Amino acid sequence: MDSHYHLHHVAILVEDLPAAIERYRTGFELREHLREELPEFGATVAFLTPRGAHEENSTIPTPTAIELLSPLGPESPLATTLKKRGEGLHHICYEVSDIAAELTRLAALGHHLIDQTPRKGAHGNLVAFLHPKSAHGVLTELCQNLKGV
Amino acid sequence: MDSHYHLHHVAILVEDLPAAIERYRTGFELREHLREELPEFGATVAFLTPRGAHEENSTIPTPTAIELLSPLGPESPLATTLKKRGEGLHHICYEVSDIAAELTRLAALGHHLIDQTPRKGAHGNLVAFLHPKSAHGVLTELCQNLKGV
Repeated sequence: MDSHYHLHHVAILVEDLPAAIERYRTGFELREHLREELPEFGATVAFLTPRGAHEENSTIPTPTAIELLSPLGPESPLATTLKKRGEGLHHICYEVSDIAAELTRLAALGHHLIDQTPRKGAHGNLVAFLHPKSAHGVLTELCQNLKGV
Repeated sequence: MDSHYHLHHVAILVEDLPAAIERYRTGFELREHLREELPEFGATVAFLTPRGAHEENSTIPTPTAIELLSPLGPESPLATTLKKRGEGLHHICYEVSDIAAELTRLAALGHHLIDQTPRKGAHGNLVAFLHPKSAHGVLTELCQNLKGV
C-alpha cells in the first residue's frame, strides 16, 4: 500500500508565541496563516508557511509548514517540557490519506503508538502520535485532512 | 527583499545510518535519493523524500526532505552530541536564492551567525548555520543551490 507520506509540518516549542511568530516572520519570510487553541493538547499553535504558498490561484501544493507551539497555561505538559529541555524542535508530522490504516500497518512493523486510535487535532484534522523510540528519537505525528475528502 | 524561503530539509541525528534509512523507508514510505560523506562536518548524510517526488516527469516541486545524519568517526562533534542528547531532531534548513545577502540581512536583524560566510555543504550547495538562540532553540541552516543557477 502506498500512502504517499507528505511532510506536513515541523513543530517548534516556544515560550512566547507572538515573539516567535514575529521572529520567524521577519527572519525567514514566513507568514502566519492559522492560529488555534487546542485545550486537549494543552497548546496554542500557529502555522507558518513561505510567502505565496497560500495564494488563491497558486498551483503549488501546500508546502511543509512550521508549527510554532506554546503551552496553554502552566498545567500543560508542554510547560514541563519547556522547563526541562527549553525551546526547540519538538516533533514532525506526516500527512497520510488513511491514518487508521497507517496506525495498523506501523504497529505491525513494530512502531510504538502513543495514540491507538486517531483523535481530533489542529485544522480539525485527525491526528495520532508515535513514540520517539520507534523513529530514532523523533516524536512523530500522523495527520489526515478530513476537509478535502 | 523577498527571498522565497523554502523548507529544504529537516535533519535527524542517528547512530546507525543504514538502520535508520530502513526504518524510515519501510515506516514512512520515504526513498533514499542521495548519500554523501561530508568530512568537514564530521558527518555521513542521507536524504530521503516521499516516493514519486523525484520522478523524471514530475511537475511537483521538490518537497521538504528528511536528512538522516550520523557521525563520521568517533572524533566527530556529532558523536559528542549523540552521547549527550541521544538520537533525534537536529536542525532545519531553508533554501534561499542569495545566501550571502541573507546572512547580511539576518545579522542586521540580530541573528547570531555560526558561519559568517557560506561554505560548501551537501549536494555541493552553499550552506551556513545560524545559532539556535536566534531562532527559539532551533539550529538553523541556510542553503543555496548552485546547480540550478
